[in-house]
Amino acid sequence: MWKRNEDAAPATHRFHGIAKTQLPQVREHMSSGIQLWEPGPVPSGLLAALRKSKQPLILTHIYPDGDALGSAVSMHRTLQQLGARPRTFLTHPVPAKLSFIDHDSVAELLDGEPSSKQLDAAREADLIIVVDTSTRDRLGHMKSAIELSDAPRVCIDHHLDGDMDFFSEIWCEPGSPSTGNLVLEVIEALECELLSTTAESLFVAIATDTGWFRYSNSGSVAYRYAAKLVELGVDPEPIFQRIFQSFSMQRTLLLGDLLAALESREGNKIVFSVLSEPMRRHRGVDLEDLDGFVDSLGQVGGSEIVILVVEVGAGRYKVSLRSRGEFSVHTIAAHFDGGGHAKAAGCRLEGTEEQILSRLLAECRKTLGVGGAA
Amino acid sequence: MWKRNEDAAPATHRFHGIAKTQLPQVREHMSSGIQLWEPGPVPSGLLAALRKSKQPLILTHIYPDGDALGSAVSMHRTLQQLGARPRTFLTHPVPAKLSFIDHDSVAELLDGEPSSKQLDAAREADLIIVVDTSTRDRLGHMKSAIELSDAPRVCIDHHLDGDMDFFSEIWCEPGSPSTGNLVLEVIEALECELLSTTAESLFVAIATDTGWFRYSNSGSVAYRYAAKLVELGVDPEPIFQRIFQSFSMQRTLLLGDLLAALESREGNKIVFSVLSEPMRRHRGVDLEDLDGFVDSLGQVGGSEIVILVVEVGAGRYKVSLRSRGEFSVHTIAAHFDGGGHAKAAGCRLEGTEEQILSRLLAECRKTLGVGGAA
Repeated sequence: MWKRNEDAAPATHRFHGIAKTQLPQVREHMSSGIQLWEPGPVPSGLLAALRKSKQPLILTHIYPDGDALGSAVSMHRTLQQLGARPRTFLTHPVPAKLSFIDHDSVAELLDGEPSSKQLDAAREADLIIVVDTSTRDRLGHMKSAIELSDAPRVCIDHHLDGDMDFFSEIWCEPGSPSTGNLVLEVIEALECELLSTTAESLFVAIATDTGWFRYSNSGSVAYRYAAKLVELGVDPEPIFQRIFQSFSMQRTLLLGDLLAALESREGNKIVFSVLSEPMRRHRGVDLEDLDGFVDSLGQVGGSEIVILVVEVGAGRYKVSLRSRGEFSVHTIAAHFDGGGHAKAAGCRLEGTEEQILSRLLAECRKTLGVGGAA
Repeated sequence: MWKRNEDAAPATHRFHGIAKTQLPQVREHMSSGIQLWEPGPVPSGLLAALRKSKQPLILTHIYPDGDALGSAVSMHRTLQQLGARPRTFLTHPVPAKLSFIDHDSVAELLDGEPSSKQLDAAREADLIIVVDTSTRDRLGHMKSAIELSDAPRVCIDHHLDGDMDFFSEIWCEPGSPSTGNLVLEVIEALECELLSTTAESLFVAIATDTGWFRYSNSGSVAYRYAAKLVELGVDPEPIFQRIFQSFSMQRTLLLGDLLAALESREGNKIVFSVLSEPMRRHRGVDLEDLDGFVDSLGQVGGSEIVILVVEVGAGRYKVSLRSRGEFSVHTIAAHFDGGGHAKAAGCRLEGTEEQILSRLLAECRKTLGVGGAA
């Protein structure tokens, strides 16, 4: 269990559970294995700011996912219930299968750079609320827009990296399975009625960020909050079908092609498949619809590293990497100027299919500490 | 919420929560939709019988699954902790991917008919404990063996069908997501320490019977118990990988073939794929390794009925049916003398591939209430 520095508590109300000086240690601790984490009290300064605001602007990270959207719209509805007139801006669209959690379409999708109208909204806001990221660069083109605003900035997040000084009040819990369950804590602390729509949005936030209660980051907290939300009327089955079992016929056929072409090396430790342009065109599937393919490849027992190579143009390839064990695929991606996390990373490569596979496999073997020729 | 008949409580301690006369109404009620269910107190007669037994014999249903094995071995260990010398018999092997939950290999697999040695064990037992079924026919060849025993029979189960009179004490909760969480209640009521192995076995029991917390039968209870077990040290991620992502390379390639050959009718409402003998032989996959294939086919959005047809011999086909919506596939299977549940059923058909597909599709159309030719 990750212990908070109780002695430092008075100084850490802005960085709940984490004194800024502790952050490097916390990062190391959190990434070293499973930690059972328990939510602490919601910072009172954050609650006071939320209660006071009449015209809040809610933002989240670029390319929002289920946790980002679920947290944002839940915060939006809650502040509405408290009598405020919130606005929520998204810099990029949410994957279509997740858009249902914005039940009343409160989130406004910005079209490229924010327009003057939207810049005005940022300037007129009396509070900026950022959820599911504490890194200012992850605000995309909204970063400069909110820098132009005089409004105080508050944040609720569960990521390791963050610009703590950017916010006047922040509740950042790297041990938390999602931002969604922190938002639920906030709603309860605000003594606001939990709407059934909000219960569903927060369930999706928690469920998607834990890979449907699969990843070790779930802790016991994700299950406990899910129980609470189901108790309030959320039905998991149609949600699961909607998110994980509502693909097009063409995408399913293409996944078949990809699985049937799966290859492995080093006694299945490395598993990979290449999705060529002709394969994709034959099935008529857009590049945007390949989300989740790499995870489907990782069903081979004993596989440590899973690679999906997608041809995105002549001699250009997008590579997705997954680690199913202890090895970090971030190292592999970083070697090719890519990025990501230990468990999920990606990069782009140019060359012939043979060339890039040979380079990728060599780097994977290095990571696994195994030798041998391609 | 399914309400127990509180007035009838004194008469129903043998059929906890269900008076025998209530069973038909309860069945109708339970199958009519989602019910939020809460566990009631463990029947005191059951607890007394478990506490008293020195030589219990633990049984479960034929073709045991995760809930059956997890519940049986958890009960076995618990009675051992209480000083008894339990034995646990299985009539059929458990799927290999689930066998790890019998951490100390306490379950004894019977080889066909029980031997005289095993019949003796049944006769010498001072208590027969049946978990995860209350239907005597589902005991397979152990049914006659325990009928020869004078020992009292007790039962813990969550299925709708049962031979209530067969048991002297029974705790049957059709609203419960699994038998595993009922066993956990029993362990707590016996005030027995919960071993970490038992925590893992019970987590798997709950997780598998709810399709990893996906089915509506999970209720809030499955999540709440999962939280409790994770709190005790269970790590969900390696368990998920072991059960759902540890297939052979060959099985994965064959799944690819099957998905790439997927067909649909009635605007994707019916989705089906045929696995021929040559396809299966080409990949070198045994018939036993096709478990879960039909569920993988059900990832097409809008599909209502999912069919997997597997050629099992010359002109002989095994058909697996799944419902993703409101329609019962049991009706379809029953039409062909098969069986199962509303959501999952199966049957066997003979003829040419074309003949059996035409018969199946006609029956599916009837169920869906749509017309048109094949």
